[in-house]
Amino acid sequence: MTLTLYAAPGSCAVAPAIALCEAGADFEIHAVDYAVNEQRSPAFLAVNPKGRTPALVTDHGVLTENPAILAYIAQLYPQANLAPLDDPFAFARLQSFNAWICSTLHPAFAHIFRPTRYADGEGHQAEVRRKGIEQVNDAFRMAEDEFFDGPWAVGERYTLADPYLYVMTSWLPRADLRQVDAYPKIAEHYARMRARPAVAEARARLGMPPP
Amino acid sequence: MTLTLYAAPGSCAVAPAIALCEAGADFEIHAVDYAVNEQRSPAFLAVNPKGRTPALVTDHGVLTENPAILAYIAQLYPQANLAPLDDPFAFARLQSFNAWICSTLHPAFAHIFRPTRYADGEGHQAEVRRKGIEQVNDAFRMAEDEFFDGPWAVGERYTLADPYLYVMTSWLPRADLRQVDAYPKIAEHYARMRARPAVAEARARLGMPPP
Repeated sequence: MTLTLYAAPGSCAVAPAIALCEAGADFEIHAVDYAVNEQRSPAFLAVNPKGRTPALVTDHGVLTENPAILAYIAQLYPQANLAPLDDPFAFARLQSFNAWICSTLHPAFAHIFRPTRYADGEGHQAEVRRKGIEQVNDAFRMAEDEFFDGPWAVGERYTLADPYLYVMTSWLPRADLRQVDAYPKIAEHYARMRARPAVAEARARLGMPPP
Repeated sequence: MTLTLYAAPGSCAVAPAIALCEAGADFEIHAVDYAVNEQRSPAFLAVNPKGRTPALVTDHGVLTENPAILAYIAQLYPQANLAPLDDPFAFARLQSFNAWICSTLHPAFAHIFRPTRYADGEGHQAEVRRKGIEQVNDAFRMAEDEFFDGPWAVGERYTLADPYLYVMTSWLPRADLRQVDAYPKIAEHYARMRARPAVAEARARLGMPPP
């Protein structure tokens, strides 16, 4: 299987880059430069018409959307033990965590980083951004209090939800938000993730600073 | 397995209700009344602290988030053939379609139906709603032109993506949006779905009018 991951440094596409490094996968990486709007270039839109990363090019076709790509990586590299593939309920719990990130937490951040998606006009955008900060804090608070079991995202075992949560947590300092320490269990998870060689390796391959 | 689906009539939770009917599952249904804010009641928050539906109560615990619930239903009832469980790439394509709905299409609708989540103040909310209409239309246009293969959501075979897409399409007439006919392939899909007995059965069990 030839795999090429299209990933913007710092974006949510860092998550599958980490997962592929954890799996010891042989893969190419293509860093997509959002600063020059490369995601809207004809060359990239031919790969992913949605104009977003991640996009994983495989021998069977192109995959998009993190929950799908992450689960596929777990299935391609079962020896890496990145998901409970033989336990449908445990697998569903993992998928639920990732679906919550992609449906709730990531969109909340998007209101801070990209308010132009949600309103025209600077006054409206400032309000969308302000409310986005509230939403991100509410989401982390909900996870911390209600369904982040620890030490890993879905319990005792490291899974594909962990790189995805790590990337979200890494965005907190970029936004005008509470710091990670406001969420003690999440902060402990973030520290664990930053110590993993696969995180350093993925960031290096994307030209990002060390974790 | 005892299954109870908590679902608000008209919400995205209609999708797993349809899927359970397609599978011929024996399940209880609890219609959650958003009109009286039942989703914020202590009784419901004890089931799902997120205060949203769907929530599927199983013998193993509670599952939330549609992509996870739908895939779990496919795994519980393999004879219903609702997902390509033995083909990791085809399964990932299905998960990608559902992740796109939960990360992009559903949140776009939320800006129309629930602008108070995204901004305070009526002027800001009106702008969020206006932009949400643009985003919903852009998302359906993208699906129609780029990745809705037809006749079913991910190709030749009916899968769990179909009830989910059906529910999203059913929301178009509720919002001040282009009508379904603006998207010919999606409109044809919507007509196919409305004719399925499982759709009528799920709506009836939720106290909704016929499709």
